[in-house]
Amino acid sequence: MILIKVGGGKQINLNYVSEDIKKLIDDGEKIVLVHGASGTRDEIARRLNSETKTIVSPSGVSSVYTDTKAVDIFLMVYAGLVNKHIVAKLQQNGINAIGLSGIDGQLWKGKRKKVIYSQEGKKTKLISDSMTGKVDKINTDLINLLLNNQYIPVVCPPALSENNEIINTDNDWAAAIMAGTLKIEEMVVLFEAPGFLKKFGDESSLIKTVDKNKLDQYMIYAQGRMKKKLLGAKEAFRLGLKKMYWSDGRIKNPIINALKGLGTIIS
Amino acid sequence: MILIKVGGGKQINLNYVSEDIKKLIDDGEKIVLVHGASGTRDEIARRLNSETKTIVSPSGVSSVYTDTKAVDIFLMVYAGLVNKHIVAKLQQNGINAIGLSGIDGQLWKGKRKKVIYSQEGKKTKLISDSMTGKVDKINTDLINLLLNNQYIPVVCPPALSENNEIINTDNDWAAAIMAGTLKIEEMVVLFEAPGFLKKFGDESSLIKTVDKNKLDQYMIYAQGRMKKKLLGAKEAFRLGLKKMYWSDGRIKNPIINALKGLGTIIS
Repeated sequence: MILIKVGGGKQINLNYVSEDIKKLIDDGEKIVLVHGASGTRDEIARRLNSETKTIVSPSGVSSVYTDTKAVDIFLMVYAGLVNKHIVAKLQQNGINAIGLSGIDGQLWKGKRKKVIYSQEGKKTKLISDSMTGKVDKINTDLINLLLNNQYIPVVCPPALSENNEIINTDNDWAAAIMAGTLKIEEMVVLFEAPGFLKKFGDESSLIKTVDKNKLDQYMIYAQGRMKKKLLGAKEAFRLGLKKMYWSDGRIKNPIINALKGLGTIIS
Repeated sequence: MILIKVGGGKQINLNYVSEDIKKLIDDGEKIVLVHGASGTRDEIARRLNSETKTIVSPSGVSSVYTDTKAVDIFLMVYAGLVNKHIVAKLQQNGINAIGLSGIDGQLWKGKRKKVIYSQEGKKTKLISDSMTGKVDKINTDLINLLLNNQYIPVVCPPALSENNEIINTDNDWAAAIMAGTLKIEEMVVLFEAPGFLKKFGDESSLIKTVDKNKLDQYMIYAQGRMKKKLLGAKEAFRLGLKKMYWSDGRIKNPIINALKGLGTIIS
């Protein structure tokens, strides 16, 4: 079983992703797909005059500020527009996909963070209306039920809180937890870069291999959202993941090339 | 097994609907829910400067004009925003719901109408970019798989065409086909009126009972979208449905009252 996490950048080529998934399934592989939609979300949020706001935690990790209005945009773009277009694309490639958000069937559950902190210059601001949380429980029965009946799950945020409120959640973390609890050994992470870069934006600075036991040491190279990917990776390995591939979602054969080691291999 | 179709009007009380579903499930009933979202769709379409356009067929049946832009709004509002809020509400009531569009797992399939006609005064206009079609095939295995594993399916448009394009589809028709192919004997249709009215808008003109074999005779009382409900009803009875209840989705105990005959019973 392979878990594939596809980023939400607009340059990711979903046709190529879909073609590779078809090949893997035809070879007898079981696939779980998790996707983002940040590019489209920002676009729709702008059109709705409700622009995406990013906050940075005191420890330097950036995330999207999510109140109930932003949750609604998440629902529209992640669970609606993008999820269903991916499902239809997979169907067009002969893959019987089913789209699920973390809400459906209690797939992703986490505790709502009632208070979060935002670093604004030298000031630390307290935010109390945030509808966010960290996923800590996965309905693996549901994923296995679908896979055992030849359906391919296509999963995205948001998730449910302990009180079944709709909460936004870090996708990389949730995907990692899902890989771990499903006892998946290989996970492919696709985004708009050739892999993990030492220098942000410099594609020649690709790190080919990373020791899974030394992930902390790589934190200095991680910009913005990459920090979250590293934190997710660390948790996935703690839960039993064997190999993680970070690779380019813009190129032909993105998954097969990732598995061949074209990008970064963490193991 | 009961199929419940909840209209998309903003006055429908989803808390009441959810409470009744919980009672029915606790009594051992299997439930499939199909919902609309037309009220919210019109609102979001306006905010996106892409207002909903209605067309009327030469035979007088009105429907939403759906090009690929309108399909995207459907995806956002039906499969995203409204579907997931209903699923979360059911979860809050202790019901393990799973939201599905007709796209997921090939749940609803139909043939795309390549050409449709719109009556504009005395002129008949031909429309060729319409992404619409009539559902004629249901993945009943998927619904049964979920029900047999204690999940409650919450279903909405759009559907897939024979070529797996995303198509908008008449919800009442699709719900009727689903009831028929699932061999469901009872179907409850909730909307913003006490039942089937002889005079549109006059709540005292409620028709208490309708003979399922004489549905055609009632077409004269049906305004706009009600015509579609009658056409759907006719098809559902042809497929084996025994009883259909049309009732008020705004009141307390909407489903239980419907089953008691508070609205219109077609049988």
